[in-house]
Amino acid sequence: MKDFSYFKNLFSIPEGMIYLNGNSLGPPLKTTGNVLNDFIENEWGQELIKGWNTKGWFSQAKTIGDQISGIVGAHQDTIIVGDTLSNQVFQALTCALKLNSKRKFILTDNGNFPADIYIAQGLLKLFDGKHQIKVVEPEEVLNSINEEIAVVMLTEVDYRTGRLHDMKQITQKAHEFEALTIWDLAHSAGALPVNLNDAKADFAVGCTYKYLNGGPGSPAFIYISPKHIEKVEPALFGWHGHKSPFNFDLNYVPSNTIDKMRVGTPSIIAFSSLKNALGIWDEIDLQELRKKTIILSELFISEIEKLTSDLVLASPRDPNLRGSQVSYKFDFGYELMQSLIAHKLIGDFRAPNLMRFGICPLFIDEEDILQSVKIINKVLDEKLWKNYKNISRAAVT
Amino acid sequence: MKDFSYFKNLFSIPEGMIYLNGNSLGPPLKTTGNVLNDFIENEWGQELIKGWNTKGWFSQAKTIGDQISGIVGAHQDTIIVGDTLSNQVFQALTCALKLNSKRKFILTDNGNFPADIYIAQGLLKLFDGKHQIKVVEPEEVLNSINEEIAVVMLTEVDYRTGRLHDMKQITQKAHEFEALTIWDLAHSAGALPVNLNDAKADFAVGCTYKYLNGGPGSPAFIYISPKHIEKVEPALFGWHGHKSPFNFDLNYVPSNTIDKMRVGTPSIIAFSSLKNALGIWDEIDLQELRKKTIILSELFISEIEKLTSDLVLASPRDPNLRGSQVSYKFDFGYELMQSLIAHKLIGDFRAPNLMRFGICPLFIDEEDILQSVKIINKVLDEKLWKNYKNISRAAVT
Repeated sequence: MKDFSYFKNLFSIPEGMIYLNGNSLGPPLKTTGNVLNDFIENEWGQELIKGWNTKGWFSQAKTIGDQISGIVGAHQDTIIVGDTLSNQVFQALTCALKLNSKRKFILTDNGNFPADIYIAQGLLKLFDGKHQIKVVEPEEVLNSINEEIAVVMLTEVDYRTGRLHDMKQITQKAHEFEALTIWDLAHSAGALPVNLNDAKADFAVGCTYKYLNGGPGSPAFIYISPKHIEKVEPALFGWHGHKSPFNFDLNYVPSNTIDKMRVGTPSIIAFSSLKNALGIWDEIDLQELRKKTIILSELFISEIEKLTSDLVLASPRDPNLRGSQVSYKFDFGYELMQSLIAHKLIGDFRAPNLMRFGICPLFIDEEDILQSVKIINKVLDEKLWKNYKNISRAAVT
Repeated sequence: MKDFSYFKNLFSIPEGMIYLNGNSLGPPLKTTGNVLNDFIENEWGQELIKGWNTKGWFSQAKTIGDQISGIVGAHQDTIIVGDTLSNQVFQALTCALKLNSKRKFILTDNGNFPADIYIAQGLLKLFDGKHQIKVVEPEEVLNSINEEIAVVMLTEVDYRTGRLHDMKQITQKAHEFEALTIWDLAHSAGALPVNLNDAKADFAVGCTYKYLNGGPGSPAFIYISPKHIEKVEPALFGWHGHKSPFNFDLNYVPSNTIDKMRVGTPSIIAFSSLKNALGIWDEIDLQELRKKTIILSELFISEIEKLTSDLVLASPRDPNLRGSQVSYKFDFGYELMQSLIAHKLIGDFRAPNLMRFGICPLFIDEEDILQSVKIINKVLDEKLWKNYKNISRAAVT
């Protein structure tokens, strides 16, 4: 694998900014603007309707899915890209509940991203009271798996603390009790090695706007284990998932392949940005990326430890139990983060008191980490965050 | 309203091409490439995560919806943009069936785009056999409305022939029988004057990649009548539709406003193209557009009538019963269309024998129509289409 400085040079980040927020929104590649301009001028503008065939637009939901499969340890022909992550959770959950329809509970934890739980709450209203959601502490998940559980639906890496679930162990336990698993990889895909195939995951979903740098709101993806693809039936009978979409029959006959998870016509402009961003992953060794993430995170944590005890580590101290972000509790975390942002150190804040710093070695190096610590030191030492105490707290996704 | 030549000059269409396929995919504005480049460099690239607030990304699902409301005769705060048209059909249909849950039938016609009917077929499987779909001929819709109908779900303009339903009359009849209506405006929005408010439509959905020129797969929209917004409950409890999305509560509490129809994080790159494309509609008088569409369509039909009886008009002969496209039946329509495309006259083909020509006055003028007829004449007269008889038929969306 090439040196990390090679990758850092591929990204466009404003001069002087240290961007510790790739866990929320990845930065653009330097090539993205030109790629989109070229798409408008030479694909959409020249080919117009013909582009669906001549430029392969129609198959991109799968060809881009195949680009992602290498990043998450999946076989080819098991991933479809499109729609939002919430839509994909809805699709995965319906498929799983239909497969395991006699079981009552969806098991999840309170470290799951709330959006996933909302989707389950909405879906259960359609199923007319047949199912219930059981929300436990992350540490209780394993012991809560039993013969009443239809589906274990979890986010592998906690969006707040970076706490990492053991996908393989939980999936194995689920299978012992004939429960299915849905893994949300929002904070995993591109952040650490994921091996869906080895873990025997049944379903997975993920987003492409964080560690995969597809752009704000870049389309989500859904993975289905090859052993389930033929059997599953999604909630949305999408015409792009029809066996013969261009026959325009009035009856839905699903494709036999992963294509059955396609719904309507996806944004090809959004796909163009994503396809380009995924192009760098052939050159990335995820084991090397993980090593570097841990080196940088450990450096950050140990330097902060030297500096102050005012910031309380909210992430697991053991790097093997952490994803690719480091979070701290601080009562005035919102104000402190505003002050850091004013000093061009970009992290983010989650109520009530959590400051999140994403450590992405593709565009963050040791120097950035040390400089970040210096900025944090200055802002704490000079109590500059107090200047933000009367500013109202605005939300950021 | 400015002259149509002003608008024609805003679009980027390849030199020498006559593009009669805006009913399938609209062409880009000349400004679109730069707008996207600017988005990448100055919004995503400079603002990164902050763009959700500083550049208004988070509210675009509604602010772009408000841009569309003027085009379809809707009040402000009644339209949300995002997801695909199929997803929006799913959302509208669930809302309607929940509102009118004691009724059995979804009434539609066989001129509806099959994708919409597929979505209904999938949704009914979740509702466990409580509902059924009734598909009738377009001419039978009015007489089929009775006290068993929960929802009348129709596409206003037939994707094959351009046949236009009377939205106001059908909606009135539906309401007399306490049925709700869902109107798919895929071939209406930007093609002809639509007045959802005057027609008292309950729900509407539409796409933005045809007459609204947002780009291939540009996001769809959903309209809900103000009288239903507070009561409806969508299938997808989307976190962007939560009353307080950034509180990250584990329980879903929907917004009281049209925002409740928002689902996950939408592609802001796709929004940027769409927002720009919608910018020209403030200057367009839809009544003038309609007049011009009819003048051009009548010219096209009458010139073809003079030319040949081999092409059989499949669209209504009365312009008041037609949307903005003209279709012809011809046994070798696929081959003929291939030959026309080789002569840079772009229409499209729908099996088994339908040739479609979209007449969009924003970028098509009298000269284009006369030139099109000349090309058709040449290809028929010299039987050039026979050269394509052994080419396999490829599908185009």
